[in-house]
Amino acid sequence: MHFTTTLFLVPLRRHGLYNHHHHHLLRRLHSKPVIEYPLTHPIYTIWAANTSLGKTLVSAGLSISFLSTTHPKKFIYLKPVQTGFPDYSDSHFVYRKFYEFLAYKPLPFSVLASNHVLRVSVPAAKSLLGTGFVGGSGKSDNFGIQNVVVSEKKGKLLNGFENVGFYEERKLQGSEIGTDEFGSSELICKTMHGWKESVSPHLAAEREGALVGDYELLEILKRCIGSDLDGNKEELDIMCVIETAGGVASPGPSGSLQCDLYRPFRLPAILVGDGRLGGISGTISAYESLKVRGYDVAAVIFEDHGLMNEVPLLSYFRNRVPVLVLPPVPQDMSDDLINWFDKSQAVFTSLKEIMFSTFTERMQRLHDMPKKACNILWWPFTQHKFVPQENVTVIDSRCGENFAVHKVQSFDLISQQFDACASWWTQGPDASLQIELARDMGYTAARYGHVMFPENVYEPALELAELLLEGVGKEWASRVYFSDNGSTAVEIALKMAFRKFLFDNEVLLDLTNASMVERCIDLKVIALRGSYHGDTLGAMEAQAPSPYTGFLQQPWYKGRGLFLDPPTVCMHNGLWKLYLPVKMQTEKFELEYVSFSSRDEIFKSNRDGSGLAGCYRSFISQELLLNRDSSGFSHIAALIIEPVIQAAGGMQMVDPLFQRILVRECQSRKIPVIFDEVFTGFWRLGTESSAELLCCQPDISCFAKLMTGGIIPLAATLASDAVFKAFVGDSKLKALLHGHSYSAHAMGCMAAVKSIKWFKDCTTNVNLIGESRLLQELWDSELVCQISLHPAVHRVVALGTLCAIELQAEGSNVGYASMYASSLLKKLREDGIYMRPLGNVIYVMCGPCTSTQVCRSILEKIFAAIQESSQVSGLATCVVEKL
Amino acid sequence: MHFTTTLFLVPLRRHGLYNHHHHHLLRRLHSKPVIEYPLTHPIYTIWAANTSLGKTLVSAGLSISFLSTTHPKKFIYLKPVQTGFPDYSDSHFVYRKFYEFLAYKPLPFSVLASNHVLRVSVPAAKSLLGTGFVGGSGKSDNFGIQNVVVSEKKGKLLNGFENVGFYEERKLQGSEIGTDEFGSSELICKTMHGWKESVSPHLAAEREGALVGDYELLEILKRCIGSDLDGNKEELDIMCVIETAGGVASPGPSGSLQCDLYRPFRLPAILVGDGRLGGISGTISAYESLKVRGYDVAAVIFEDHGLMNEVPLLSYFRNRVPVLVLPPVPQDMSDDLINWFDKSQAVFTSLKEIMFSTFTERMQRLHDMPKKACNILWWPFTQHKFVPQENVTVIDSRCGENFAVHKVQSFDLISQQFDACASWWTQGPDASLQIELARDMGYTAARYGHVMFPENVYEPALELAELLLEGVGKEWASRVYFSDNGSTAVEIALKMAFRKFLFDNEVLLDLTNASMVERCIDLKVIALRGSYHGDTLGAMEAQAPSPYTGFLQQPWYKGRGLFLDPPTVCMHNGLWKLYLPVKMQTEKFELEYVSFSSRDEIFKSNRDGSGLAGCYRSFISQELLLNRDSSGFSHIAALIIEPVIQAAGGMQMVDPLFQRILVRECQSRKIPVIFDEVFTGFWRLGTESSAELLCCQPDISCFAKLMTGGIIPLAATLASDAVFKAFVGDSKLKALLHGHSYSAHAMGCMAAVKSIKWFKDCTTNVNLIGESRLLQELWDSELVCQISLHPAVHRVVALGTLCAIELQAEGSNVGYASMYASSLLKKLREDGIYMRPLGNVIYVMCGPCTSTQVCRSILEKIFAAIQESSQVSGLATCVVEKL
Repeated sequence: MHFTTTLFLVPLRRHGLYNHHHHHLLRRLHSKPVIEYPLTHPIYTIWAANTSLGKTLVSAGLSISFLSTTHPKKFIYLKPVQTGFPDYSDSHFVYRKFYEFLAYKPLPFSVLASNHVLRVSVPAAKSLLGTGFVGGSGKSDNFGIQNVVVSEKKGKLLNGFENVGFYEERKLQGSEIGTDEFGSSELICKTMHGWKESVSPHLAAEREGALVGDYELLEILKRCIGSDLDGNKEELDIMCVIETAGGVASPGPSGSLQCDLYRPFRLPAILVGDGRLGGISGTISAYESLKVRGYDVAAVIFEDHGLMNEVPLLSYFRNRVPVLVLPPVPQDMSDDLINWFDKSQAVFTSLKEIMFSTFTERMQRLHDMPKKACNILWWPFTQHKFVPQENVTVIDSRCGENFAVHKVQSFDLISQQFDACASWWTQGPDASLQIELARDMGYTAARYGHVMFPENVYEPALELAELLLEGVGKEWASRVYFSDNGSTAVEIALKMAFRKFLFDNEVLLDLTNASMVERCIDLKVIALRGSYHGDTLGAMEAQAPSPYTGFLQQPWYKGRGLFLDPPTVCMHNGLWKLYLPVKMQTEKFELEYVSFSSRDEIFKSNRDGSGLAGCYRSFISQELLLNRDSSGFSHIAALIIEPVIQAAGGMQMVDPLFQRILVRECQSRKIPVIFDEVFTGFWRLGTESSAELLCCQPDISCFAKLMTGGIIPLAATLASDAVFKAFVGDSKLKALLHGHSYSAHAMGCMAAVKSIKWFKDCTTNVNLIGESRLLQELWDSELVCQISLHPAVHRVVALGTLCAIELQAEGSNVGYASMYASSLLKKLREDGIYMRPLGNVIYVMCGPCTSTQVCRSILEKIFAAIQESSQVSGLATCVVEKL
Repeated sequence: MHFTTTLFLVPLRRHGLYNHHHHHLLRRLHSKPVIEYPLTHPIYTIWAANTSLGKTLVSAGLSISFLSTTHPKKFIYLKPVQTGFPDYSDSHFVYRKFYEFLAYKPLPFSVLASNHVLRVSVPAAKSLLGTGFVGGSGKSDNFGIQNVVVSEKKGKLLNGFENVGFYEERKLQGSEIGTDEFGSSELICKTMHGWKESVSPHLAAEREGALVGDYELLEILKRCIGSDLDGNKEELDIMCVIETAGGVASPGPSGSLQCDLYRPFRLPAILVGDGRLGGISGTISAYESLKVRGYDVAAVIFEDHGLMNEVPLLSYFRNRVPVLVLPPVPQDMSDDLINWFDKSQAVFTSLKEIMFSTFTERMQRLHDMPKKACNILWWPFTQHKFVPQENVTVIDSRCGENFAVHKVQSFDLISQQFDACASWWTQGPDASLQIELARDMGYTAARYGHVMFPENVYEPALELAELLLEGVGKEWASRVYFSDNGSTAVEIALKMAFRKFLFDNEVLLDLTNASMVERCIDLKVIALRGSYHGDTLGAMEAQAPSPYTGFLQQPWYKGRGLFLDPPTVCMHNGLWKLYLPVKMQTEKFELEYVSFSSRDEIFKSNRDGSGLAGCYRSFISQELLLNRDSSGFSHIAALIIEPVIQAAGGMQMVDPLFQRILVRECQSRKIPVIFDEVFTGFWRLGTESSAELLCCQPDISCFAKLMTGGIIPLAATLASDAVFKAFVGDSKLKALLHGHSYSAHAMGCMAAVKSIKWFKDCTTNVNLIGESRLLQELWDSELVCQISLHPAVHRVVALGTLCAIELQAEGSNVGYASMYASSLLKKLREDGIYMRPLGNVIYVMCGPCTSTQVCRSILEKIFAAIQESSQVSGLATCVVEKL
């Protein structure tokens, strides 16, 4: 084998990064998903249980093992954060050990090895340029310096970094002629960021004034992962490792812990453990920190210190994670480690094989999942005949508001999609809350699992009850009844309301001598048409008939209610307008009420004195009168409404004045009032409880969905003391005999406690306006208005975390609208937005803490997609200007 | 201040332990709860992020700070596991630093300091006795040896330990006369177990042949915590710290990780962090390992190394855990640290105050909880009027099958109670599974939170569906429909069955031209009287009328079924007998079938050919015939049964032959069959699915409760391919339009995947019989038989994880029985068994992995309580001997 060392200054276009400056970079963040990586080859993150455990030795060993077999291959080594630079440079160490090893053990074919340094702090740049020195890592510091090329200085970047343009390269000629006809193998090493001081990155960044945000760092990392793959999608023989700094939970440059910083990528992990005394504990704890952040650890590897640490580790892992032991590293500082690398090759080869087989298994599973899903899952609300395998989305993980999905395009990749349907309206957490919730879930499962609720008390259930009564139940509720979901919460609410009604109307019912009489008495609810309260029979009965309640779905359904058509409001062509149902479209309802100067005006309590209010009142009275049963057997015994927004009914905003008057009319007749806040509760509409928007209080209220932050099912039915008292008596049969196995389960309660506190704490929720109980406006008003002006848009409702857009779909356009919506949704998924329509209504829903920047960027994409789709569809492209 | 050193050989009765030998100790395990500790004073465990971070310095500093103020006080320092003994002895170090410090800074009052060594390995004992030397810890090894007293050798204990009876004591005379009239303060240091080699305890224990099991270690620890408190219950000024060995996850002597080993006590924790480079990561990871095992960490403390590690730590903790920084420890090995302790006193005093205020807050909360619970919670199935505050159980945590409850007796304590009601029949995990589930819950919340299910796929949902179809759905099911609880699973099952029935009887129903006809068609279920399927209306309708379905509970209930009284079987006076309902008590049913030679005989399929089988068959045919509606509008469209055991109906065992014939008769008439396995599924009755016991297959099956191991709600409705096909078509309206927000939520699916695998893996479930799909007999047959012979007992059903005992309650005894049951339950709770009765039926339920030893001990206690209660009640005390 002949060694030729070739030195040259590489054209800077090799480093994609240099062609972009910061502003360009920021712009890119908004145009395509930041979190995206190819699945064409294994990419691993190398973590360690502590500092100085040999991550770089493992990286170097892997590079040697990987590149030493058949070629051509490419090994990419990335060091995103390097402190102590240039005295310490792990990428240089990997580069140098590689060519030193090849000098000792030549390969038959050629390899091109290189080491790049992208951005370094000013002190580090000075040091690098002043000395031309790049040192090794750890005990190999004393290595000589060779073949260093420093490019011209490229001037300062933002935030105190310089583009030093440092690059070194060696062509290692193969020993056999003719082996290079398919190109040579390559080792690419990169240091992304370097700081001079040998301290924790967050300190170095601060002291040297060279700061890099988490988002920016990930963006650069993404491009380093991807930039060497252009035009090379088919190449399989690539391996990439990303080496972290220090331990798993060591702070990164921004101060975020590295395990949190890199979480959006959720790359599979290799953990370098600790073979010393006490090292079992540190290794296990580090592993657990990775696990409770959702990482998969493919293998643990550590240096042998003769303590057999692998035995308890294997027992802990129950053989599910391979544990590899490296020979002891020579203590002699002058040892060049080449013999050690040679001796360790078998271990590194095993590690490499584990990394490849883990990768292959993952890919296999990702590809198999859609087919298997179509074959054995039974999705709710889904006509399976309409879901071909290729339409199934494989969700690999979620991070805050975003899914990471598997995409198969020209090549496989993991890509980010904003969960715009908030996974059936349950989602609230940002990435930070998700991680804290995860830790709390581990804690609660370990502390309580689940424990029996009746006649018992335990902290999470009690604390949640306290928080609910101080929060959404403030001023009216006195008791909390737990169940599992919105539907059960509503069934319980109905049972409460009926009992309260019977309790208040005892003359109707001789409670001591009942049976025969009872079954003649018919209790009904009042509800609004278009409202939805759940899919169990009791909840269904409180809904107006619809295709969803048909005989084919539940032959037992009959619809036990007086169902009223509500007046609705929405933004239409830039204006907030009132829409009256047919029954109300009489001369009594004056025309002046058809539009509002702003959304706030709709909620104003001075509307109570308006003529419209009077009209509503008399309309309601008349309806109640018409439905009175003269025989005395049929009674309206409960009102149930979704405050402000009827969600499943197409995100319809009901006139809050109408709902308020309806509530008052019922309460004045001793008809118990139920608010179904399953959808509207917990900031969904910008206030903690949407009763605040209605300015009136119910007797009973149902919560679920967002209550737990959207990670786990739990529901609560809150009741006033008067309702509770209707169940207190001298017989167990008077008690409310409804319960589910996991009533008030500890994990659900803890998730709710955490989320409720998080959302209403202005240190964790930046969207809270000062001390008020209100979220700031999340959807850019001008943009919302513009969307409503688009001819393809019929109406818009933007309120709290919801922005719903009804597409034009009148008459013959209905079919068109659904086609239109489906092309729109397809385009939006490509743009990184996961949306599900409700018929011709599309909507986006964020969490209470989602930043307005993100909301704006999502809404912009939606607007662009509407514009584009309507152009494609050949619809009117002129924008109607009305405002 | 005068110093008088008094040396003497302390009578060994001071060390309660020495009076008991191993067998006595084991016997005690079964007579009272092992896990119990007083709440009269703070008891903390001192953990560390790694070895050699200064746990012992913290302990010594705390002892000085605590005892230096007003007296009398007692500081108890316990070192359960000491390796490197006697060269290293942390208890000696604490003892010595304490008196050295007092020599430097005298107190006005007297203090008695002592150091005890309980059990050491033979090599350690030799070393101790040979040299009379007890060394210090860490850098203070060079300390002189004084005042050592070694008692006579007490001979070998079991398992390679010796009772060395080592004891040293110093009376430190106070400087002021008259300050000692209330007795002197005391420092008590104890080493519980010592090994000679300075390696990880599991290695030392193995190499030196001195083994101590986890259970035994906890028992000794409990007695060390409690033994110095006898007759001292009122004393408030006590503090106890237990110092662990190495890092949080370092193995203990048995190989169990210490954080797992000590988990049953779940004592509050102080974490000694790492102030060095890389120490932030190690500290956070150690904290997380404690959290995901359910520990509460009161404070983090570490030695300053000038790196400001407290800043990122405080940011990580968001100020919820105090972080304290100790001055740098002198590097000079000859430094006696007395100045350092003096300099550190302010920090130790802060730490002590945090420990006391955390303790006080906890006590306050524990005392307030019952009242608050009574005021704001609304328990299901509970007449609140009957639950006075003092009857409320405060559950502090659970560990495997046991609760840790707060008890107020002559003093407050935390005590263990076996969860004999399996928290409404949900529970399965042992302590190991609980910890693994906790880690998996953290992982799943971090990886997925919850993600949208329809048309999507993600690993936990798919893997669970695969496991269900390979397991409980094997050979018949092809689809999995997820929901939240048993009740929703049943509502879905009914919708499936009705559709299938309509699909098979299309002549009845012109599906394309329906509406008017539809509502005339009345679909009914067949169900067995006494069965229970849930509390939502649809599930209620499938149950026979009962007090629970009355008008006062749900005015909409009417009971849409043909409800049959089933024949039951049980053990009565030592014999398995058949009980026929009145309707069947005709001459046709031959008398020879009234008893069985064994329980197994009941399940034998050769009964299919018996005369009884023929009787059942004709009875069923006749009932179906009688209920046929000649008009053709009313149809029986589904059968729903709980296989083998009707749980809520009083743990009634239905004759499996009857159920099997009923299933066959329905299937032959194309009536879809639903098994409600919400209670019976997943090993509850000794087989994974109880359909295996019935030897027949349903068309639809419901699972919940134990499916997730009992930590979180999730339900699944399994269906055959024929059922699924009835929902496939060209319209979305033909799809099953029923769904809940958290359908197939990732955490529930992951918990189920983990639990299902755990229960059926013979490496984790020791109760599995070989390769069979059967649990071994968990309840001692002889004991069960004896219980059934007791005159106070009417019947017994022991099957799988269930042992139900119906107390005699005929005629005028009904009231008596409930009184009797309540005194029985009270006594059992005192004995550490938490039970809830079903009327006059008491039962105990364990997990699929609970050891037969535990089951036996529980059953023995129950038998003893029955005997005792019946004596107290003056009932017949003679034991009827019939077998």
